[in-house]
Amino acid sequence: MFHEFKLVAETPVYVQVKNYIKRLMMQGALQAGQRLPSTRELSELLGVSRGSIIAAYEALQDEGLVYAVTGKGNFVAEVSAPSGQAVPTWRMDWRERMNRQARLSVELDHMKRSRPGLRAAKGAILFTSIAPDEELFDLENVKRAFLDRMAVEGRVLLNYGYAKGYKPLIDYLLNYMERKGVDLQGKDLLITSGFTEGLDIVLSALGRDGSAGGRMLCENPTHQTAIKNLRRHGFEITGIPMEPDGLDLAALERELKTQAFDGAFLVPSYHNPTGIVTSAEKRLAILEQLGRYRVPVIEDGFNEELRYSGSHVAPLIAMAGQGNGVVYLGSFSKVLFPGIRVGWILADRELIEVLESVKRARSIHTSTLDQSLLYQYLLNGNLEKYLKRARAEYRRKYEWTKACCEQYVPFSRLSGSGGLHLFLEFPEEFDTWKLLELCADQGVLFTPGDMFYVDGGGRNTMRIGFSRVSEEDIEKGIRLIGDTAAKLLGDQS
Amino acid sequence: MFHEFKLVAETPVYVQVKNYIKRLMMQGALQAGQRLPSTRELSELLGVSRGSIIAAYEALQDEGLVYAVTGKGNFVAEVSAPSGQAVPTWRMDWRERMNRQARLSVELDHMKRSRPGLRAAKGAILFTSIAPDEELFDLENVKRAFLDRMAVEGRVLLNYGYAKGYKPLIDYLLNYMERKGVDLQGKDLLITSGFTEGLDIVLSALGRDGSAGGRMLCENPTHQTAIKNLRRHGFEITGIPMEPDGLDLAALERELKTQAFDGAFLVPSYHNPTGIVTSAEKRLAILEQLGRYRVPVIEDGFNEELRYSGSHVAPLIAMAGQGNGVVYLGSFSKVLFPGIRVGWILADRELIEVLESVKRARSIHTSTLDQSLLYQYLLNGNLEKYLKRARAEYRRKYEWTKACCEQYVPFSRLSGSGGLHLFLEFPEEFDTWKLLELCADQGVLFTPGDMFYVDGGGRNTMRIGFSRVSEEDIEKGIRLIGDTAAKLLGDQS
Repeated sequence: MFHEFKLVAETPVYVQVKNYIKRLMMQGALQAGQRLPSTRELSELLGVSRGSIIAAYEALQDEGLVYAVTGKGNFVAEVSAPSGQAVPTWRMDWRERMNRQARLSVELDHMKRSRPGLRAAKGAILFTSIAPDEELFDLENVKRAFLDRMAVEGRVLLNYGYAKGYKPLIDYLLNYMERKGVDLQGKDLLITSGFTEGLDIVLSALGRDGSAGGRMLCENPTHQTAIKNLRRHGFEITGIPMEPDGLDLAALERELKTQAFDGAFLVPSYHNPTGIVTSAEKRLAILEQLGRYRVPVIEDGFNEELRYSGSHVAPLIAMAGQGNGVVYLGSFSKVLFPGIRVGWILADRELIEVLESVKRARSIHTSTLDQSLLYQYLLNGNLEKYLKRARAEYRRKYEWTKACCEQYVPFSRLSGSGGLHLFLEFPEEFDTWKLLELCADQGVLFTPGDMFYVDGGGRNTMRIGFSRVSEEDIEKGIRLIGDTAAKLLGDQS
Repeated sequence: MFHEFKLVAETPVYVQVKNYIKRLMMQGALQAGQRLPSTRELSELLGVSRGSIIAAYEALQDEGLVYAVTGKGNFVAEVSAPSGQAVPTWRMDWRERMNRQARLSVELDHMKRSRPGLRAAKGAILFTSIAPDEELFDLENVKRAFLDRMAVEGRVLLNYGYAKGYKPLIDYLLNYMERKGVDLQGKDLLITSGFTEGLDIVLSALGRDGSAGGRMLCENPTHQTAIKNLRRHGFEITGIPMEPDGLDLAALERELKTQAFDGAFLVPSYHNPTGIVTSAEKRLAILEQLGRYRVPVIEDGFNEELRYSGSHVAPLIAMAGQGNGVVYLGSFSKVLFPGIRVGWILADRELIEVLESVKRARSIHTSTLDQSLLYQYLLNGNLEKYLKRARAEYRRKYEWTKACCEQYVPFSRLSGSGGLHLFLEFPEEFDTWKLLELCADQGVLFTPGDMFYVDGGGRNTMRIGFSRVSEEDIEKGIRLIGDTAAKLLGDQS
């Protein structure tokens, strides 16, 4: 015994000794009532200072695992049923106990369904991500924000906060939204752990009781997380086809006439996956149409900040003025730091009051550290500087990707007027999954578009995320996609 | 115009100018096509440097809100429908759209149901909190941990992480649980945003489909968050009465014989609200009984670390050995920092795989910043030092509170052998809500016990949280409670 002990860096020595002895006890190598080596003996056996052994024994005493007998030394205490021999072990099939929502969560878990063989090889060119480019992160400003805030109210930040959110951040974001033209009267704001939690909270409160679910409108295609969460909450989804300036108003009217809807989930800016920005005229028309049928809107403010060109377009919730039919979901995650899980819901005050209770029941509150760090970062004026750099960088990549697509994949229809991705549509019979298989063999991955469709369509589409690909690789990758697609098209005709 | 501009500290001047102009635009004070003052003019009007005005105009151009005409200056751009005049506003009644789960979240939201008049006056003595004492927080070590981790992998921390959690923390916690005697074979660990999210995720996956709900056992009383979330997920709750060493085994057997259960939610250590530690013998007996009926256990590891005396008792999941029927929910929140929202679920690997997908659908992942900071804090060996101080401090307060209760409230039965609270039970007919009203008038608040009961019982009980009350106030407060209770009892007899 005591010969397999190995010291590692970083963790204090006495903690390592304590954990080592604890493990020997749990493994049954040290039995209750057994005398432990004297501190001097163990110090020699393990090759660490006697002070560390003394501290380790003290810590073990504190945990009730070791007791001292004056003049006789330290002894292993009775530890109740360490390895469960006393209890008849039984095993159950957990999968069979999972309900519909849990099963759907697995079934629609895109991350778990990557086809075998399509995993990224080392050095592959990945157009699959639309996460921000880490190289842009201004770590020094983040550190500064953390230290600034800790200096002001460190103790407050580490203790419980409020379900509604960190007050200074709420106020900041209310102002921020007001500057986007939102009439704040009668509205309020709830902080969530990112956009996704916000959406999940809203849907969890709106879904019909029982297994009946509800009925929700959305753009078709739309993003996978939205489809997944709508389905998880039992909603039947009706997708409205997209036109270059936003959804097809005639199709929308037809659906509204046909059946009643519980809501419409819309992504008016830099729509994922098509990258389309819904025009101001269409925004007004959509609001007017949905208003006539009393269908509330869940607006995803996704990437609104990543405008590269064109005029400013107000979010739907701003256009709705004093109406309370729009629920706005915001987040800086895609623009700033996804690791910091902070988003917000801006909506009718009465609704927010209910959702605040839902949030409290689900997770008490969003990390105060994340919220306060983000607040101080914004307060320090870093967002503007960061956006300036990020916009310049992403715009360059955007234009370069677009140019490459136009040159190498001229036979596809391209959409996307900003954000971190472009969308390609191939001739009707084309199969982007087949294309992906061929490209993957040559080290280039992209996201086939069908997973964004609510009706099994889009087999001939794909999304190209460029935010984390170098310009050199963008050209190389798109050229390969184009060449391979051309060959496939040639084979078909 | 331009005269109500006021500079504040902290935020860069150009950002303030930009936001100010943006607001004027959104309010309609600046109209599309209108020429803005020259940078020199506005610099004089607002009393800030010309450089700040130039930067502000540039930022506004970046956002598409202002356009420059060479030789003529800056102009306000067309902003679509700023105040929604173009859309017919309509209002809806959101409350009527809320489903059962949302309505229950409000109804059972203890924070929103504090009776009027029972709010804390300034200087009041509050026995209502069981949050940690902020004065114990070792801010310097927290800062150190943050900076250490940022130095190692700052960019990684700020970008997307994994739904399952931050790998180094997962490994650390697996080791940590192994040292508590857990057999890790066939098990896995999922990081959650605190204990509460862990519980909510497990319950959301276990609840029966449709509105039928399921049936769950628990200790009676038990903590309010558990009752709330069991109800929200449609479970019928069967409470088992508590004895001084854990729940009543005969009552448990009776219930198990009578009907089938989907699970048992148990808090074996420092049970909230009674403070009872279930004995090792009883733990084994409970596991044996539940195992016979194939009822899985959801174990709340709450405050396990705050042991002040007595021998080490292994958690149920350790006693279950290779059995996979125990789901363990852990958290350092009560012990360390509640503001950092990190908890974990340790359970059967197949179950964790499902819950990982549920977690991803709900919130993508827990804040990487919180996770990595906690990891580095633990790695640096701070937990041991912190626990040593915290245990000494809380133990002193615990013993002092106990002594005060024994002296001033001798007619109540006291329970609680650790943690941050004690539980008092008065003679049967006594009403602690009436007592609370009288005490509140004199500036002392506590938590009436009935909210912890699943069956409307416990009107004669109360919880005394002492973690954030000074020793002087503990004595003053408990004496007042005792004196007032004695008077009430005198009136009754």
